[in-house]
Amino acid sequence: MTRCSVVVVAASKSDLPIMDEVGKTLDWFGVTHNLVVMSAHRHPEKVRALAKKVRRNGTQVIIAGAGMSAHLAGVLASHTTVPVIGIPLYTEPFGALDSLLSTIQMPRGVPVAVVSAGRAGAVNAAILAVEILSIKCGSLVAKLDRYRKEISSEPG
Amino acid sequence: MTRCSVVVVAASKSDLPIMDEVGKTLDWFGVTHNLVVMSAHRHPEKVRALAKKVRRNGTQVIIAGAGMSAHLAGVLASHTTVPVIGIPLYTEPFGALDSLLSTIQMPRGVPVAVVSAGRAGAVNAAILAVEILSIKCGSLVAKLDRYRKEISSEPG
Amino acid sequence: MTRCSVVVVAASKSDLPIMDEVGKTLDWFGVTHNLVVMSAHRHPEKVRALAKKVRRNGTQVIIAGAGMSAHLAGVLASHTTVPVIGIPLYTEPFGALDSLLSTIQMPRGVPVAVVSAGRAGAVNAAILAVEILSIKCGSLVAKLDRYRKEISSEPG
Amino acid sequence: MTRCSVVVVAASKSDLPIMDEVGKTLDWFGVTHNLVVMSAHRHPEKVRALAKKVRRNGTQVIIAGAGMSAHLAGVLASHTTVPVIGIPLYTEPFGALDSLLSTIQMPRGVPVAVVSAGRAGAVNAAILAVEILSIKCGSLVAKLDRYRKEISSEPG
Amino acid sequence: MTRCSVVVVAASKSDLPIMDEVGKTLDWFGVTHNLVVMSAHRHPEKVRALAKKVRRNGTQVIIAGAGMSAHLAGVLASHTTVPVIGIPLYTEPFGALDSLLSTIQMPRGVPVAVVSAGRAGAVNAAILAVEILSIKCGSLVAKLDRYRKEISSEPG
Amino acid sequence: MTRCSVVVVAASKSDLPIMDEVGKTLDWFGVTHNLVVMSAHRHPEKVRALAKKVRRNGTQVIIAGAGMSAHLAGVLASHTTVPVIGIPLYTEPFGALDSLLSTIQMPRGVPVAVVSAGRAGAVNAAILAVEILSIKCGSLVAKLDRYRKEISSEPG
Amino acid sequence: MTRCSVVVVAASKSDLPIMDEVGKTLDWFGVTHNLVVMSAHRHPEKVRALAKKVRRNGTQVIIAGAGMSAHLAGVLASHTTVPVIGIPLYTEPFGALDSLLSTIQMPRGVPVAVVSAGRAGAVNAAILAVEILSIKCGSLVAKLDRYRKEISSEPG
Amino acid sequence: MTRCSVVVVAASKSDLPIMDEVGKTLDWFGVTHNLVVMSAHRHPEKVRALAKKVRRNGTQVIIAGAGMSAHLAGVLASHTTVPVIGIPLYTEPFGALDSLLSTIQMPRGVPVAVVSAGRAGAVNAAILAVEILSIKCGSLVAKLDRYRKEISSEPG
Repeated sequence: MTRCSVVVVAASKSDLPIMDEVGKTLDWFGVTHNLVVMSAHRHPEKVRALAKKVRRNGTQVIIAGAGMSAHLAGVLASHTTVPVIGIPLYTEPFGALDSLLSTIQMPRGVPVAVVSAGRAGAVNAAILAVEILSIKCGSLVAKLDRYRKEISSEPG
Repeated sequence: MTRCSVVVVAASKSDLPIMDEVGKTLDWFGVTHNLVVMSAHRHPEKVRALAKKVRRNGTQVIIAGAGMSAHLAGVLASHTTVPVIGIPLYTEPFGALDSLLSTIQMPRGVPVAVVSAGRAGAVNAAILAVEILSIKCGSLVAKLDRYRKEISSEPG
Repeated sequence: MTRCSVVVVAASKSDLPIMDEVGKTLDWFGVTHNLVVMSAHRHPEKVRALAKKVRRNGTQVIIAGAGMSAHLAGVLASHTTVPVIGIPLYTEPFGALDSLLSTIQMPRGVPVAVVSAGRAGAVNAAILAVEILSIKCGSLVAKLDRYRKEISSEPG
Repeated sequence: MTRCSVVVVAASKSDLPIMDEVGKTLDWFGVTHNLVVMSAHRHPEKVRALAKKVRRNGTQVIIAGAGMSAHLAGVLASHTTVPVIGIPLYTEPFGALDSLLSTIQMPRGVPVAVVSAGRAGAVNAAILAVEILSIKCGSLVAKLDRYRKEISSEPG
Repeated sequence: MTRCSVVVVAASKSDLPIMDEVGKTLDWFGVTHNLVVMSAHRHPEKVRALAKKVRRNGTQVIIAGAGMSAHLAGVLASHTTVPVIGIPLYTEPFGALDSLLSTIQMPRGVPVAVVSAGRAGAVNAAILAVEILSIKCGSLVAKLDRYRKEISSEPG
Repeated sequence: MTRCSVVVVAASKSDLPIMDEVGKTLDWFGVTHNLVVMSAHRHPEKVRALAKKVRRNGTQVIIAGAGMSAHLAGVLASHTTVPVIGIPLYTEPFGALDSLLSTIQMPRGVPVAVVSAGRAGAVNAAILAVEILSIKCGSLVAKLDRYRKEISSEPG
Repeated sequence: MTRCSVVVVAASKSDLPIMDEVGKTLDWFGVTHNLVVMSAHRHPEKVRALAKKVRRNGTQVIIAGAGMSAHLAGVLASHTTVPVIGIPLYTEPFGALDSLLSTIQMPRGVPVAVVSAGRAGAVNAAILAVEILSIKCGSLVAKLDRYRKEISSEPG
Repeated sequence: MTRCSVVVVAASKSDLPIMDEVGKTLDWFGVTHNLVVMSAHRHPEKVRALAKKVRRNGTQVIIAGAGMSAHLAGVLASHTTVPVIGIPLYTEPFGALDSLLSTIQMPRGVPVAVVSAGRAGAVNAAILAVEILSIKCGSLVAKLDRYRKEISSEPG
């Protein structure tokens, strides 16, 4: 039976301190997730294989974080119609301008859903995934409401 | 009973030539949609009212397109946990840099899913919405596959 | 009786080290002010309520500082015709480019008065507020002259 | 007796098509205004003389529009403590990035209130001036409310 | 026997007016070339297949032109160690900033050789390819010298 | 009798660590110079007075360094036809983009000669001043040759 | 005997419509000038030869206009200590950002005096050259004053 | 007999920590290389001499790294038709935007092959050089395959 789950892809081990925020946030919502590290350019076959099997594995959302010429989310999206969320990560010397533009400017027909750059984006990618999953897994709606209430009751 | 449907929000009538691409693409997939024109700054109460009722109206995705200080998607997202897709529209004199950064750099906790700027983004927002809806409305999966096949069989 | 006063809104507690400069500068001029912390996206109802009551509370100027997709000043301005001064704050990784463009590029009809980014802007927002208030509270004119004299007599 | 009035300064005759929007909008509100054309770099003495007399002439707000190295608003502000509103105008080849940064990044102590670039900014500068004047000229409050109502009742 | 030849890949038919400059310039040098149109995102399998066979087909250089999130050159490079030359093409609304950064900021280990954006880049990609081929096909050295002589004898 | 001399203007004391490089370099060439600290916005009268007397004081070149909305060089140039060299200084959060565009984009008729941003610019402003002075003070030509020889004999 | 004269270098014939403004402005001042068209990259030997002889030919100022990777002014400056004025010209698709940064960011020791981008810069390069020449050719001082008077008496 | 070899040019000694990565990577492949330090602006004659002799010395590729107005690769390319690879290096305050645009935007006819900015670019310039050399020195093909295998077997 298909369950609500997410696969999280980091382009590099050096991205893990940021990408771990995705998993922590999904944990708060009790959403099953799986983290893999693979690069669009160094591991193109692994990335392709992952994208090709994700729909039939019953995973409903892919979250991909990458920096520089951040092709990861786009390459994943080229091989699947499961929603792909892209997080533009910070890298020297162009900050996240290169990763943002590389991730977001997808051509007509193959979308990527892009969130804020960096750490805020890692958290938001997870929440966006939960919002998407909530369409099917209705119990997540109440959790989303509770999450909103918590962050809005924080003093500033 | 909840049906798969989308609400499309244009910030201004002048955005309609681009935003109409959203509806055309949703039509291809046979997804129910509703287009409204309202501005985050000129019609804040309407925007708030729309966002607050969208979950219980059974609409699963919001698509919002705006230019300049494009607050529309973010303001909608501040009032709902339904996924909000933002399209940064082109406006003079900063192109889409202002609308892109205004739409995407949402703070931790309140995500917006941003797609390509301009016309490509309008098409992609619709496809992303269909990908999201396909989690629940399974018949859309085959349509997404067919759409991919069509765009990849076009000669270039 | 309506007195000359200002409300200062910080989008987040992490903005307080900068936003405190607003209060310090207003203190120099003896202008009454009130500091609140609320986010356009996490506390949309509080922001709306504040903006809606500010005119009848006899507050003449709102100063709002925010980073990233800095919608705070614009959302406040959408609910009031009291002058709103926006301070684009610095946040990673886009510096203040995102907050500057998000704050300043308001659509026709709903202005925000934007000052320098960051700490200089916090001081200048306060002085601009005093300049505005000096139209009504004439005693502030002499104080503004004295302030100018002081900063111009500093050796460099 | 001091009346509510505004002086509008265009840096060049070529800026008049945009800067005329300021006067049109002030006319809607019935606010007295005066348009002069002078450049910070070609007419520095005129600009200085204008700024030095504006407070005692009973003009409460200055609006200045300039492109390129847009020093006009800043030079005016260096000679007066009357609020100065700056409009960054579009010029080739840097769009309004040069005029925006030249106008807004004023040093601590000498603020300029900057609005949107170009035509939207010309309208908004006028409205911001009216919002400022409404602190003293109370009859403008109702007009501001009416203006907001009109722009929000436009269909999109 | 391996001959000196080039494969030219355009991401879209709309890129052909620019990409045809590549072929014209290669023709001047008498270098064999082959033009194909395929998109990294719409035709990922074709792109992969092309890249995987290019070395053993005896093609020594790949030239790829793409706009927006220009992943084409990078995806080709991820599947081959034949030199890949990337041309960042112009697309609205970010000019060639998105395609330049998407093409050039490749991670350590998988290079792309990027040339000027747009039409000048199409010509230069061809010349760079000839310079590379001249290492093996020595007759091209004299042609390169002649080409330089011609462009430098043009009056300006 | 008119001697070859330069006046160096720093916009703020905080700019002195960089601006002191100007004097050190002029010292190497034995060129008389005078350093003053004054801001275009905080000390407009002093800046005007300096610019107005510089030609008849026999000073042949003005060097001005400023950050942010760097109006200093332009304001000086608006009051004199002595060559004004501008150095765009680094300030948060826009680096030197704001000071570069504010300094360089002077309107037709009132030029500023702008050099590299920051410390390299401070050295180069001094050398450019010496190059300009060498037109009149012929002994500087040999010193310029010697300086070039020295920097080119440094091992890298 | 050394006379006051200027050499004007355009990087390409396509730059002549802009670069002709330099000559027209120098004509107004009665300054001898000579226009040549040569590219730093297509005619490196001619550029080097020109720069090497300019001092002993009695030319006191070089004005160079180029677009894209605008190396022309810098390459000229690398071969002479005569002041070199650079004009960043507009070229697609990066506007003048590439030519501005290529021209201005010269390393310590080899300055270029950069003026506004495009047509305003062509006029200003000529005026800056006259300002420089006025140090030696005193009759130009009165002409500069007259020029300033004319541009400031233009109605806007 | 011509052997496969590369000359590496650093614009300044301060660039060596980055540029040393080029040599280390070439060492991995066993490719002969030679490192020299020379600046396009401080040592134009040395740079010209190097470029002019590189083809007849049997060196097949030049790699040049420079920051700021990075003319080095372009000046080298103006004197030779041997492939020139440019690495845009990081320098304050424009990051690598100035060096990237200065290096890449070469005019029609004189290409430079540009790789990623900074350290990743230094590694990639070496690999690109090896890819180019592999056309002639066939033994490098297997080494390139091995290198790819190694970087793709690293755990992330």
